[in-house]
Amino acid sequence: MPTIPRLYVDNPLSEGAVLALGEEAANYLSRVLRLGIGGEARLFNGRDGEWLARIEAVGSRRIDLLLAQQTRAQPQGGGPGVTLLFAPVKKDETDLIVEKATELGAGAIWPVLTERTQTRTVRLDRFRKIALEAAEQTERLDLPEVAEVQALPRALEALGPGTALIYCDEAGDEAGDKSGAAWGGASGRAGPMLEVLQGLKGRDAAILVGPEGGFTPFERAGLRGRKDTFPVSLGPRILRAETAVVAALSLWQAVCGDWG
Amino acid sequence: MPTIPRLYVDNPLSEGAVLALGEEAANYLSRVLRLGIGGEARLFNGRDGEWLARIEAVGSRRIDLLLAQQTRAQPQGGGPGVTLLFAPVKKDETDLIVEKATELGAGAIWPVLTERTQTRTVRLDRFRKIALEAAEQTERLDLPEVAEVQALPRALEALGPGTALIYCDEAGDEAGDKSGAAWGGASGRAGPMLEVLQGLKGRDAAILVGPEGGFTPFERAGLRGRKDTFPVSLGPRILRAETAVVAALSLWQAVCGDWG
Repeated sequence: MPTIPRLYVDNPLSEGAVLALGEEAANYLSRVLRLGIGGEARLFNGRDGEWLARIEAVGSRRIDLLLAQQTRAQPQGGGPGVTLLFAPVKKDETDLIVEKATELGAGAIWPVLTERTQTRTVRLDRFRKIALEAAEQTERLDLPEVAEVQALPRALEALGPGTALIYCDEAGDEAGDKSGAAWGGASGRAGPMLEVLQGLKGRDAAILVGPEGGFTPFERAGLRGRKDTFPVSLGPRILRAETAVVAALSLWQAVCGDWG
Repeated sequence: MPTIPRLYVDNPLSEGAVLALGEEAANYLSRVLRLGIGGEARLFNGRDGEWLARIEAVGSRRIDLLLAQQTRAQPQGGGPGVTLLFAPVKKDETDLIVEKATELGAGAIWPVLTERTQTRTVRLDRFRKIALEAAEQTERLDLPEVAEVQALPRALEALGPGTALIYCDEAGDEAGDKSGAAWGGASGRAGPMLEVLQGLKGRDAAILVGPEGGFTPFERAGLRGRKDTFPVSLGPRILRAETAVVAALSLWQAVCGDWG
C-alpha cells in the first residue's frame, strides 16, 4: 500500500534538484498532511518518471523539496493509446466521467457536443483539476490531455487518421425500426464490444459515448460512413453514460491496453 | 428509445387485471409525469415479465392501471448469475456501487465487512431503494437481492458451493514483499481478469471488491485457502472501489454473462 503522498508538478525533475513549490503544495503537505522538514512526497510531471522528495524548508506560502531519487521511470512510448470522446451530461455524472477516464488510463479526454447533448457549456478548468487529482491518486505517471469542448464532426476530424473509432451504440431509432429492442446487437447494428476489440489490438483507439437519448439517425449515418469506425454494444441493459464510459474503457484496457 | 415510464410493482401481473397502486406511484405518474386517464406505463414485478398498462383512474393517493398486454416475457433461468460482494466505502461511492451493480446486471448485492472496512453501518432500505430505481431505469426485468451487511467469512460461507469467487487483489502487503508493485500481477499473485474469466464461463460467480487499503494478509490467506477462488488484477493503476466494481462486472458480463 503506497502511503507516501503523490503530487503532480510542472517542474523538471532530476536527482539532487531542489524544487520550490507554491502555496497549494505548501498548504497540502504541511497543513493538511502535517508533514515537516524531512517529510516525504512523491512527485511526477508526466515526463521524468516519479521521484521521491524530502521536505527541506516550509514557509507559509512556499515549500522546498529535495529530489532524492527516481522511484519509477517514465514509460517510453509503449502500447497503443485510447482517447475518450463523451457528450457532457449532468454535472456530477460528467465529473465522474472525467475522474474515471483518468483512473482507467485514457490518454486524452475530449468533451463533444452531439445533437442530443443537453449540457453545452463545460468548465475546462474544473475538468483539468479533476483529472489532475485522479492522476495523483491512481498512480499514473502522466496526465490525460483534456480538450476544449467541440462539435462531434470537428472531434472526429481531429482524430489521428488510423485511429479506430469505437462507438457505443445504444437503442437505435432509425425509421423502420419497430422492434423496440434496447440493444443494437439484437438487430445486427453493433457487435459485442469484447469481440470487436479482438480485431483492434495494437491500434490507437477512440471510444465515443453519446448522451442520454443516444445519437440521432443523422449522426449514426455519419459515424457509419467514417472509415475505421466500429459500433459496439454493451449488453441488453440501458447503461447511464458514466457507466458506459467505465465499462468501455475497462474492456479496452483488458483486451488492447495494459491490463494484460 | 423507450420513453414509456417503467415501474416496479409487487402485484402479480396478468392480462386484463386492474392494479390499484398507492400514493407513491400516483404521485410519480400523475404529478411528476403529468399523466392522466389513458396514459401509459410499463410495469414489472421480477416474475411476470413487463406489461404495458393504461391509467384507468387517478385519485390523490391512488392510481388504477389496466394491464393491456405483456411487452416482454420473463427470462427463464438462462445463463450463470453473478453476485457482488463489496466493502462499504464512503456514502456517495457506496450508493454508486449499488446503482452500478444493478445497471450491470448483478443478481445479488452483498455488503461485507472486512478488517479494513471503514464504514460499518449501512442503510439497507436506502440500498434497496437505489437498486429498485436503477432496475426501473436500466430496463431489467428483475431486482437484485440486496442482503444485510455481514462479515466476510459469513458471506463466503453463504455462497453456493460451486460458485467461483473472483477477488480483485490490489497491491499486496505481505511480509517480505518489498517490491512496492501496485499490481498484484507483477509478483504473480493475481492473473489478468480477462484471462481468468475465460476459464469460468458457464459458472455462477461472485465478485469481491475490498475496501480502500485492500485486504489484510490474514484475509488474503483465507481467500486463497478457499476452493474455487481466483485472484484477479485490474491493471497497473490504483482503482477506487466503485471503479473496480464497474470494471469487474463489465468484464464478467462481456466474457461470462449476457453481453455476448
